[in-house]
Amino acid sequence: MDKKQEQRETLIRPGERLDDLQNGYWMIQNPEQFCYGIDAVLLASYARVKEGERALDFCTGSGIVPILLKAKTRGRHFTGLEIQHDSADMARRSVEYNGLEEWIDIVEGDVCRTEEYFPAASFQAVTCNPPYMTGNHGLTNANRAKMIARHEVLCSFEDIAKAAARVLEPGGRFYLVHRPFRLAEIMFALKQRGLEPKRMQLVYPFVDKEPNLVLLEAVKGGKPRITVEKPLIVYERPGVYTEDIRILYGDGR
Amino acid sequence: MDKKQEQRETLIRPGERLDDLQNGYWMIQNPEQFCYGIDAVLLASYARVKEGERALDFCTGSGIVPILLKAKTRGRHFTGLEIQHDSADMARRSVEYNGLEEWIDIVEGDVCRTEEYFPAASFQAVTCNPPYMTGNHGLTNANRAKMIARHEVLCSFEDIAKAAARVLEPGGRFYLVHRPFRLAEIMFALKQRGLEPKRMQLVYPFVDKEPNLVLLEAVKGGKPRITVEKPLIVYERPGVYTEDIRILYGDGR
Repeated sequence: MDKKQEQRETLIRPGERLDDLQNGYWMIQNPEQFCYGIDAVLLASYARVKEGERALDFCTGSGIVPILLKAKTRGRHFTGLEIQHDSADMARRSVEYNGLEEWIDIVEGDVCRTEEYFPAASFQAVTCNPPYMTGNHGLTNANRAKMIARHEVLCSFEDIAKAAARVLEPGGRFYLVHRPFRLAEIMFALKQRGLEPKRMQLVYPFVDKEPNLVLLEAVKGGKPRITVEKPLIVYERPGVYTEDIRILYGDGR
Repeated sequence: MDKKQEQRETLIRPGERLDDLQNGYWMIQNPEQFCYGIDAVLLASYARVKEGERALDFCTGSGIVPILLKAKTRGRHFTGLEIQHDSADMARRSVEYNGLEEWIDIVEGDVCRTEEYFPAASFQAVTCNPPYMTGNHGLTNANRAKMIARHEVLCSFEDIAKAAARVLEPGGRFYLVHRPFRLAEIMFALKQRGLEPKRMQLVYPFVDKEPNLVLLEAVKGGKPRITVEKPLIVYERPGVYTEDIRILYGDGR
């Protein structure tokens, strides 16, 4: 039995599967829990981590964002914070499967209590693919793991903005993917915490449809002035990604 | 000499011209001062004034927005507020030229002092095509009239949001056209004054370019949730408007 096969048998639990990220790395996922979607891929693509920087991902779930950021950047170290034990455990096993223990830490903990895990101003970049729905929006999910990932049950966006402002050093960047219907609340919460929105891109499923995702970069202590970028269109026609999206997924390069 | 010719001789001053709005009305404009642009036309198109409502336009300039709103809606009455004497005077003459004195009032005054002209909560809709530039953005204009129309010399966006919140009744709507680079500041100022952004449309010169205008609707006391609409594209190719824009200008209907 070779090493990879042995790892597969040790690290992958019943009901889990192994997905190829097309960048040399693999993800353990559990379809019964929350699987990562295009949102996480778009966020990792939008975020910039410079050489030698330390990056922290809130609500990291399966750990997809730190693993994608490790693959695409020259950052020095990546941390994923996840409140759900099963997700944090699975994320740690993905890190181990890829041999990235030196580069990526998965911390099991609460975004409302970052002072217990991280010193203030200790990261240059923070990313977050948070729960999108408030108590009033969308249906409540019968599966608790999925509900926590999708709804603001355990933390609100304000909690996340407060935590990002705390752990970022001055000039540090906060990258975010969210639903456009929350845009005004998001910008308000960011500015209240001294995180100035500096760059925004709307993601449209089709060129003539309303956007269904928004990507944002905010800078701690930045001056007011935001660049709204050209639209990102996902589908050329039903079922067929545009060139922009195919590049994100590692095809079409 | 017929009545219209007599009016033209009485109402139009040297250096001024008369522009056909293609909707039965005409505008007096002075190219030496600030002429209205596509922004005002987009704002009037975006704004909704319901039957019987009273609407107020801040920074009305030539009075273009009240005149366009009178033409397209069944609102009961329209007021334009303008701080510059020459613009207010020209706007009044346009109102008279179109025989709209019964429908439109032009008030010469300061958006920072609305309590001197209007009771609180006395309008159902407010519109504004404000100066876009702060002291730090764009070049200062040597012509004072143009500078006041373009730069936040006499009022800031916060002043405008405060004034809109004051004159609108609960549930009243505030319509705004602005530059996307101010978006975060705008949303913050609106929410601070209890004006909840509810609808937003970005205006792109071309489909693959960054947007250069943003249209917004905020509701006094509204609940958080914004609809980001499909993009509005201005040009099909250089010099050729899209169908959407041709309709706004009264062609292509």
